[in-house]
Order: sequence, then structure tokens, then C-alpha cells
Amino acid sequence: MNTIGRYFRVTTWGESHGPAVGAVVDGCPSNLEISADDIQMQLNRRRPGQSSVTTARAEEDMVEVLSGVFDGKTLGTPISMMVRNRDADSSKYREFVKKPRPGHADLTWRAKFGHFDFRGGGRASARETVGRVCGGAVAKKLLEKFGIECIAYTKQVGNIVSNESLDHMMKGVGDLIESNPVRALDIELARQMEEEIHKAKAEGDSVGGVVELVGLNLPACLGEPVFGKISSDLAAAMASIPAVKGVEFGLGFKAASKWGSQVNDTFILSNGKVATETNNCGGMLGGITDGMPLVLRVAFKPTASISKKQKTVDLASMKEANLVIAGRHDPCVVPRAVPVVEAMANIVIADHMIVSGKIPRNLG
Amino acid sequence: MNTIGRYFRVTTWGESHGPAVGAVVDGCPSNLEISADDIQMQLNRRRPGQSSVTTARAEEDMVEVLSGVFDGKTLGTPISMMVRNRDADSSKYREFVKKPRPGHADLTWRAKFGHFDFRGGGRASARETVGRVCGGAVAKKLLEKFGIECIAYTKQVGNIVSNESLDHMMKGVGDLIESNPVRALDIELARQMEEEIHKAKAEGDSVGGVVELVGLNLPACLGEPVFGKISSDLAAAMASIPAVKGVEFGLGFKAASKWGSQVNDTFILSNGKVATETNNCGGMLGGITDGMPLVLRVAFKPTASISKKQKTVDLASMKEANLVIAGRHDPCVVPRAVPVVEAMANIVIADHMIVSGKIPRNLG
Amino acid sequence: MNTIGRYFRVTTWGESHGPAVGAVVDGCPSNLEISADDIQMQLNRRRPGQSSVTTARAEEDMVEVLSGVFDGKTLGTPISMMVRNRDADSSKYREFVKKPRPGHADLTWRAKFGHFDFRGGGRASARETVGRVCGGAVAKKLLEKFGIECIAYTKQVGNIVSNESLDHMMKGVGDLIESNPVRALDIELARQMEEEIHKAKAEGDSVGGVVELVGLNLPACLGEPVFGKISSDLAAAMASIPAVKGVEFGLGFKAASKWGSQVNDTFILSNGKVATETNNCGGMLGGITDGMPLVLRVAFKPTASISKKQKTVDLASMKEANLVIAGRHDPCVVPRAVPVVEAMANIVIADHMIVSGKIPRNLG
Amino acid sequence: MNTIGRYFRVTTWGESHGPAVGAVVDGCPSNLEISADDIQMQLNRRRPGQSSVTTARAEEDMVEVLSGVFDGKTLGTPISMMVRNRDADSSKYREFVKKPRPGHADLTWRAKFGHFDFRGGGRASARETVGRVCGGAVAKKLLEKFGIECIAYTKQVGNIVSNESLDHMMKGVGDLIESNPVRALDIELARQMEEEIHKAKAEGDSVGGVVELVGLNLPACLGEPVFGKISSDLAAAMASIPAVKGVEFGLGFKAASKWGSQVNDTFILSNGKVATETNNCGGMLGGITDGMPLVLRVAFKPTASISKKQKTVDLASMKEANLVIAGRHDPCVVPRAVPVVEAMANIVIADHMIVSGKIPRNLG
Repeated sequence: MNTIGRYFRVTTWGESHGPAVGAVVDGCPSNLEISADDIQMQLNRRRPGQSSVTTARAEEDMVEVLSGVFDGKTLGTPISMMVRNRDADSSKYREFVKKPRPGHADLTWRAKFGHFDFRGGGRASARETVGRVCGGAVAKKLLEKFGIECIAYTKQVGNIVSNESLDHMMKGVGDLIESNPVRALDIELARQMEEEIHKAKAEGDSVGGVVELVGLNLPACLGEPVFGKISSDLAAAMASIPAVKGVEFGLGFKAASKWGSQVNDTFILSNGKVATETNNCGGMLGGITDGMPLVLRVAFKPTASISKKQKTVDLASMKEANLVIAGRHDPCVVPRAVPVVEAMANIVIADHMIVSGKIPRNLG
Repeated sequence: MNTIGRYFRVTTWGESHGPAVGAVVDGCPSNLEISADDIQMQLNRRRPGQSSVTTARAEEDMVEVLSGVFDGKTLGTPISMMVRNRDADSSKYREFVKKPRPGHADLTWRAKFGHFDFRGGGRASARETVGRVCGGAVAKKLLEKFGIECIAYTKQVGNIVSNESLDHMMKGVGDLIESNPVRALDIELARQMEEEIHKAKAEGDSVGGVVELVGLNLPACLGEPVFGKISSDLAAAMASIPAVKGVEFGLGFKAASKWGSQVNDTFILSNGKVATETNNCGGMLGGITDGMPLVLRVAFKPTASISKKQKTVDLASMKEANLVIAGRHDPCVVPRAVPVVEAMANIVIADHMIVSGKIPRNLG
Repeated sequence: MNTIGRYFRVTTWGESHGPAVGAVVDGCPSNLEISADDIQMQLNRRRPGQSSVTTARAEEDMVEVLSGVFDGKTLGTPISMMVRNRDADSSKYREFVKKPRPGHADLTWRAKFGHFDFRGGGRASARETVGRVCGGAVAKKLLEKFGIECIAYTKQVGNIVSNESLDHMMKGVGDLIESNPVRALDIELARQMEEEIHKAKAEGDSVGGVVELVGLNLPACLGEPVFGKISSDLAAAMASIPAVKGVEFGLGFKAASKWGSQVNDTFILSNGKVATETNNCGGMLGGITDGMPLVLRVAFKPTASISKKQKTVDLASMKEANLVIAGRHDPCVVPRAVPVVEAMANIVIADHMIVSGKIPRNLG
Repeated sequence: MNTIGRYFRVTTWGESHGPAVGAVVDGCPSNLEISADDIQMQLNRRRPGQSSVTTARAEEDMVEVLSGVFDGKTLGTPISMMVRNRDADSSKYREFVKKPRPGHADLTWRAKFGHFDFRGGGRASARETVGRVCGGAVAKKLLEKFGIECIAYTKQVGNIVSNESLDHMMKGVGDLIESNPVRALDIELARQMEEEIHKAKAEGDSVGGVVELVGLNLPACLGEPVFGKISSDLAAAMASIPAVKGVEFGLGFKAASKWGSQVNDTFILSNGKVATETNNCGGMLGGITDGMPLVLRVAFKPTASISKKQKTVDLASMKEANLVIAGRHDPCVVPRAVPVVEAMANIVIADHMIVSGKIPRNLG
């Protein structure tokens, strides 16, 4: 099951140290202007080695568009995109074949498939998200044409939590987010988050965090009750990202401790239109967008690969053993997860825009 | 999109005050012993009017099995189940046509479909979950044959949170949960939760809460990376339940504030088998079950229908107006949501058991 | 797999002698005016006991609409329809449990499911098509709004083949087709076909035939290459009808013996628009409609239930045995298959109209 | 919709003169031994320029396997395969932008998508079948492990029809079929078919034909009534192949002119097992395989590209015009369609083997 979407469908493929990774986007309307640069720009945001808070591994990740685009515009046919993997040294991963890494999917993949590409984590590696970002970049380009923008940022790293209101969420804020290595909204907090990451890194450890995503200018009708609610599809999309442990909308888990009179978003008139006074529901009622900003948060656990000594089991001898994971890993996945969360949101929203008939099949 | 599942597919249908509600289960293996009683038992747990913490509306909700079962065993053909709606007085709902209720889906459904069955909330009513419980009852019966059990309970009501470990999660605990009206695990806390609900009710208000679900005896291989991870499918299933604002697995959002060395579940030997020392991941690694108990939590907002005066907009005059919702409503949806959360988990797990080849097509 | 369609999805359910048969239509746009009568009218065309060329069994087949319609218009929610089965004497079918009927699915269903509802053929009975006709009636009503009409008629019974051109295929021809019991276009040939059926019936035998379907006023853009071509979806839909042995489009198998210069439909100007001089392609090029009438033919084998003595195997003794099937059966399925072929075509075309964006989600 | 299959899913992509064509196979069980050679072998059978009856264009069509295989065995992850297109001269196709070719999809694709890759027919080119053959080669390799073989051959070219019984359909007959350029079963008829093709070619014309496919050793249980019958899925798969105008099973359209007593396959004992005396049903009853050989036929129209002068419309001037198509084209698509028909059958059967639980998810 490597395909997501009903109409705008993204299929990703590829193992971390195999020949390449990529994606096929099927169902993108025709006549969308798009270039390899549009995809490359998003891949660059995901790329390792960007800053001191990401892994020092350098990957170039150049995308090649193999089909579906002609004369600078989509054909309505599948858009196949490929990123070659660079030659990597897989030798250090061989140890994990018999000593599974805590927090990693080594064992469950083996239980399921029997045969596992141990090199770099194979398909269970976060490198798999390259395909997601390729697909998301096409979706983003499509949504831009309809004035829709999804902006994600780092809301929390460890215990550093930013609580700014979303009032300044507007076009342009993306530059602010990209201006600091953790991709936070608040520059002062960004520095604290960076420190928290460096502290974990210095101890050979890692730290978790939360990404918040805001969707702007969505029409009030996206979502297909009762099993194709846009909240459902977003929850699934986010939960499919590696390391995700939770998804919440609007007030989220905080709503559980409150009373109805505190949570209900009362309807008001705003510029002659019905709006809600608050946005505790996160822009969705009954699983359908209500025209207010869509708000969701995604919780990421700390990177499983840490260099501290950990306990594990030696599968060859069936004895408990110790394990030290060498190599360079992101001490915190959150900054690089920001473009992945955006990609997934863009894919889901593009899909719903088409299913709802808000985007025609042919944009020409 | 009223169908959930890849192979074990449940389609629900019906409006709150229409002739009936129901479900069609397609893809259930043949030769499963099942009777209408098996379904009725679950419907009884969902039924309104059970106790002082649920709505006082009395509904009988008798299921009729219309197809798919012959001689007490499934045929491998679609299982069609129907519950007639009782005659209901829809007149009080007419006001909401022009005065949308805060926190409800009245407006978004109208924006989407243009035509809306205002009576009792139509398809946006929680009565829609009758079909889910019917489908879930079939899934539960199927999973029982393979030793799998999903147990949900009320973890939180308002600010009352139970933090018991899951060590006593075992067969039989279901009776304890059913023994108190809020469906909590801890009888003392149950009483406090009950009080909290009565307090909200007395003020014409409502209160939110959290349901925790534990899945026992799942084999270590369920989940289809990368877009059919069982975590993904569970997140979608839970987020599709009315009033849900968040879903989390294992440590959930708490993992975001921790370091890797605190979160990684180290592998140990337990009775000669590889297990994890802790279960912070909630029984899933890389979106595949690992053989440990599956643990997830679902956050419910407070019931949107409260009898306190609320602000809204009169759509006829396009002026702001006040609204008082009369009638009997659950002051807290959580106790009755417990069997719905179980139903959705059972459906998702049954589907994955079949897709993974762990349940054959013919049980004979 | 009892669901057909991508967006306009029809799920059918029910066994021949079970409590009921029915269908759930999901994805029908909202605000379509429809009543139970619209569905009943199509069921009446499928009903047994209509004439001397159909089975003498009388079935009333009254439809009940259980959801999805309010105030005479669709809600955009699932439309659940049910037809109760009349009490039937299932005793004569008990023999077939050990003596499988040649040409029937008794044995293959048993091999697959292990458990089989022998009564009246269970779900393998042609009674299953009641649900198809219910779903097709909704699709027909939807297409009517957009000027699209699908007309099927009996093209061949045994060796009697009608070869009229389709020039008189126009609105109103439906009445002519319904005016004769075999549902032929040519009244003189209709009489010969009727005789052929009576001849077979008199000998305790049955006879096959061909239904031709013509789709009028389809826009030139329906079809989703390469695996969702409308020809592909129509072929699947037709091949799913009981007793079907072949499907062909336009010239069909005759095209295999011809040269390109004979088959290519040259483009001409017709009233200032591009059209084709001939329609050998049957209104589809590259699996996409071209604006010319859609033409397809479906081959039906003779009814498998004949009262002549036949050889079979006694599964109890594992010895070869004889079998005589008593009871009343259609000596030729073709006349009653005409509305079923129409139903399937309407379902597929409605689905493609929505997928192509030619029918909006909300008709209001 | 460029994906086929429920569990074993093949997505194809690519335009004729774009950078590459390819396929992604998702859902193939893990631990299947496979190499690029297995795929290359099937591509070689599809390759142009093989003989005097195919186009003289020479294409190398070397496949590269980009993911899903490690250490010579499948991983259970998507298998991505790519074939680079050679530089082609697209200039001669520019004329068809304003003068659509009769029998081609130029106009319908433009009506649908607005933007069309005219070069070599774009995605509407038969070059699209490269991806199908890649996917089919994986399916074939999988089915081989379970003793299943699909053998296709040229049954008819123009008026030359071979009527041999299928008694000599057995392992090894494939070599006989590959020994003659038209891929017929009967060497004498093969020569006549070859002549027929040369005759058409000499006149700048083309000729149609029929491919028959026989499936050997299928278990008696494949097919998912009522909308996932294996006959339905095969019909859809075959109808999706370019130039196909009809599909029939067993007796096919001939059954329409016969009586039940002539068509019913009576059950007999054969080596102590129940079998059928004849195989008029083509190995399927009620859409489920019955253990006898699966038999289907596919009708192909003559190649649309002929060099004879044809009428068309000049879309620039909106005047009727003449068109002469230069270049080298297959005078008969049938010989090269043989491996494509096999590929589609292998894909459908592999999918049903997995869905039916006859092939496990992990072959290790």
C-alpha cells in the first residue's frame, strides 16, 4: 500500500540505499504549469546537511521528471519523478541485522516480509519521504493556482513550546520560518529550540517535537462524510509519516478537559459573511472544512538512532546485548519534517479539491 | 465515501430521523458463526438511555440481519444489517435550519450538499454510529476466533484523568468497565467522572473526555507501509468518529517533549522471545504491530448540543441571534463512544488480519 | 467485492431466498429529484412473470428507500434500497447440494466459500440483479438530467439476429422495445425470437442471445486512460452480469477480419463540428468517448437451468448420476437482461460523468 | 487511473517520446526470486523490429530495476522499473496536431485533457504497453512458483482463423508459438497469416486479428462475486489494451446462438475428481474459476496508422482535408499483442491468487 489519495494519487517507491527513490503522481489535472525546479525547491527544504541541527550527511537529491509534463505543462497523465541515491556505505548497517535497533522498524519489517534491505533502513528509512515531498510539490503547485497555502512550522522541540496565536499566519510568513534552522515562527524561541537540539546531540541523544500546520483559504466544503472526512484523511496522512505518535485538530486533546460552552465556536457575522468567533474546531465541522483556517498538530518522537549505548537482543545467539549506533543522524527530525508535513497536507487537500469538484480536470 | 476498509469493508448508511440506519459488511470470511444477538449485544452498549450520564432518549435499536448469514454461519457474501428508526418528533430541529448550532456540522453539510436533512441532525447525527457498531460487532466476532480482543475505556472526563498502568488489561476487565456508567477502569475515579458529568449537565453544559483503547494478542506483522500503516488506518478510523479532535499512540504527544534514550523501547528476552521492556511506541514500530499491546487514545470534545444560551447567526435575516437548544442530549459523549471506538478498532484490525493473510477467506 | 464504481458506487447485497435483497448507492450528487417510483419502474421491467417468454414465477419486488432521500431529493448521503424476498419453497434446491447443476456456479461457490446458501441459488442467483437495477435506476435518473440515455434491446435470440442500423435509435424507441415481450427493435423479428424461445421451452431447453446497448448524447471526454478507460469499465460491468460470455464494442469481433482502411472512422464536418463518417469504433477512441453514440453488445449463454435430463456427479457417493431440474425458469434470460444491461451502463456512465467533472456534486 | 489491481497493483507511466516509460508494482509478495533478466525477456517479445511482420523501428528497451529487489529477491516493497526512450524524431507527428488521424485517440485525448503530447502519440501510443509488460513479467514469475502458466497465441489474422482444439496446450507449446513470427499455434496457418499481413502492408494498409489466451493450473476458487468476478477483471484488463474491440470467454459469442443442452458443461469424474466433460464456459462458472483451463479471446482492430490516403478534418481551417501517415508502423498489432495479453492475464490472476489467499504475503 504505497499509494495515497482517491483522485490525486501519489505512489512512492524506493529503498534508502537502492538505486533510486521516487514517486508517481496520478490524477493531476492537465495544463498545470510546472517545472522540475518547483519540485527541486521542496526537495532542498527536506535535504539533509542543511544546518547544524540536521544530519551532516550531504545528499544532493536532484529530481528528474520522467513523464507527465510536456512543454512546461502537465498532460493529465502520470507524473513520474526520480531521485538517484548516491553511493552509500551500507556496511555499518550489517550489524543491525542481528542486533535490532530500539525504536526502529527493523524487527517488525522482518516479521512481516521475511526479507529486509538492512542498508540504511531500506524502505523504512526516512529517505522514503523524498517521494512524498515530490508528490507534495506537485500538489502545492496545483493549490497555489487556487489561492490555497499550507504553512507548517516547528511548534515544539522538547520542552520548548511556542504558543503564538496564528493571527500572523499569512502569506510571507514562510520566509520567516525558513530564516531559522529549526523552522520556528518565533526567532527567540527558535534559538532556544536550537540549543535544546544541540544539547541532545552533544549527549549522543535526540529530542522530539511538534509540527503545527495551518491551511489558508480552503473553501467550506472539503470532506466526504463519513469515512472520507478531511480530518480522517489528514490524520491518516500524518500518521503515515515516520516517527509520528499523534495528530490533533484545533484545540485537540485540550478539548477533552473543557466544557461545551468553552469549546463551541459561536457563529458571527464577519464582513457580511458567517464566520466563527473562535477556531477551536481547527477549521472543520463534521469532517468538512468550514472556511476558517485549518489547524492541526503532529507529534514526533525523538529520533530513534542515538549514539548512546542501548540494550537490545542478539538474534543470532538469542542473548541480550548492547548496541551503539555510529554514524550521523538528525538529533531532531522536526525541522526536516516541516516540509514533509506540508507535503502530506497539500496532497490530501489537492485530492479533496478535485473530489469536491473545486478543481477541474483540465486547467487549460 | 461511506465505506471503510480494504478487504473487510463496512459501508454505513442512514439518517437520524429517516426510516432506518444500517451497514453492509463486505469481505467477511465465510463460515464464521454469528447471530443477530452478537450484533445486538454491541448495539445495546451504544444505546441511549442506559444510565444517568447518557441522554434520556430511549431507543430500542433492534437489528435485523438481512443477508450474508445462513444456518448460523457467514456465507462470504455481504452481511446487510438494518435498525429501524423510531418515529421521532423532528419539529424542534426546524429552527436550526435558519439558526445553525455552534459546534455542529449544520452549516458545513449545507455548504457541501445544498440539501440537508435537518431532522435530528440527519446523517451528521451520532446516530450514524449505529452502522459502525453493527460492522464492528461482526469484526469483533471474527477477531475473537483468533484470540484478539480490543478493550476501550474512559480514560478522562473533563479534568478527571485516570493514569493506571495497563498491567491489569486482560480478559475479563471488560466486565469491570461495564460495571460503571462512565465505563472507567478505576471505580473510584468513575464516581468522580460521573459527578463531573452531572455537574456539567446541571448547568446545561457538557464536558469532553478521552477514550483509551488497548488491543491484545495482535500478531507482529499487521500494517502495510507506507500508506497503509496500521497506525494510519487507525488514525483515520478514529478521526472519522463524530466529535473526535485527536488521536495518539503509545506515549503520544508526551513523546514530543522527551529524549530518545527515554522513549526508545529497548529489546529484551521475555520467555525466550524478543519483546520490548517498555511500550512507549504503543505496540507499533514503522506502522507495523510488534506483538506488544496496541495502545491508542482518542480525544473527544464536549457535546456540541448544550442548553445554555449561545450566539449564532440567523441565516434568514443575516443578523446575529441567540439560540437555546432544547431536548435531551448526552452531557458527555465519552461513555457511549467507548463501544464505537472499539468497533472502529475491530474493523481496522480485522481488515489488516485478512490483508496480511492471518485470517483465511474461508474459516470452515 | 460487491461494490462497483469509483465515485458513484453501488454495493449490492442479498441471497435469493434470504430475507431481502438490496443496494446502497454512495456518491450520488445531492439535490437530484427522485422517488421510489423511479426505482420501482425499472424493477418492474426486470420482474419475473411478465410474459410467456419469462419464468412464470410471480414476484412483486416492491422497493423501499431507507435513506439518502429527503423531501423528494437526494441528500448526497448513501441511498439504501431494499426489496423483501417473498417466502419461497427452497426444498427442491436441496438435491443440488449433492448433485451440482451443470452450467451453474454451485460447485465453484462451494470451492471458494465452503458454505453455500443452496436455496434458490443463494447469491449466485440472477435475483442478485435486483440490487443492480435499483442502483441503475438512480444512475438513470441522474443521467436524464444531463440528456444522456442508454437504450438496450434484444439483438439476437438463438439464430435469429436483427441487423437494423441504429439510425432510428432515438428518444421514444424505448416504447417500441417495451411493446414486445422479447424487447426487440423489429416487431417481425420479435415474433420469430418469441417462437424460438417457445420452441426451446417446449423441449425443456433454453436458448442464448445478445443484447445491444446504445448510449446517446455522451460528452466527448468520458474515460480515464489507461486502466480506467470507459470501455474497460463497461467490459467489467457487463462481464459481471450472470450468464455473460462476451462483450464487444462497435464493430467488435468483426473488426478482427478487416483491414484498417475499412475500419478507421474518417473524420468529417457535420453541422460545423468534427464527427466521424462511420461509427465502427462504437463511440470510443483510446478508451474515451468521442461524442458519437456508444455501441456495445453483450453475449448471454442459454439459461443453465433446463428440465432435460443432464449428467452430473453425486458428491455424496462420488458417482456419476443424472439430474432433472424441476421448477419454472426463464427459457431465455435475454428479455429480462435488457434492463440489467441498461442498469450497468447507466452506473458506469454516471460514475464517469462525475469523475470527469461533467456532473457536479450538488445539483441544487 | 493508471493503476490496475486490488492487491497486486501495477501503475504504468510514460509517454512515447518522453524521457522514459515504466511501471511500479506494489503488493508483490516478498522473497520472490527475480532479476532484471526476467523482465527483459518479456520486453524482448514485445519489442518492435523483431520480424518482417512488425514495425521496422528498432528499440532496445532495456529495463532498469530501481527498487523493491535486494539480493535477488523481492522485498515486499514497490518494484519500480524504467525503460528509457531513445531519441526519436517527433517532427512528423506535428502535422497530426491539426489533422487528427482516423482511428486514433488524438481528438478524444485533446477533448479530455486540452493539452496533448503529440509526439509519437504520447501516452495514447502502444508504447505505453512497455509498463504493462514489465508488471506482467513480475506477475508471471510469481505465478510460475505456483505452477500457473498463461499462454497466448495468434488465433486469427484477417480471415485466416485457426480452429485447433486446445488439447495440445501444455508446457512447452510456448516454444512452438515463439518459433513463427506471427505467434500462431499452427505452422502452416502461421505462413498464411504472415502472407495476409504482408499483403496488407504492401498496399499501405493494416489488418486485424484475434489473440486467444489459455490459463493452465488455476485453482478452483479465483474470483470475487459479484463485481470482482475474475471474468470481470479479465474483461477490464483486456479491454484496456490499445486497439481491443471485444473480449469473450469459452464459447463466447457463439453461445448466444445455442441451446442450454448444447452449452452446459456436464460434470463427470476424471481421475476420481469432479471435472467438466466440455469447457464451453472457459474455465469459469459464476465468475469463479472451476479448475479447468481458463480460455478467453481478444479481438484487435487493424492498426489505425495506415499509409493510404485518408480523409480527416483540418482543425485550423475547419475544412475537410486529406492525410497520409508516413513512417513505419506495425501492419498488424496482433503478433506483438500476444505478450501484452499474457501480461494482463498474469497481472489479473496474480492479483486474484493473493486476494484469495492462495499466495502468501511472504514466500520465504
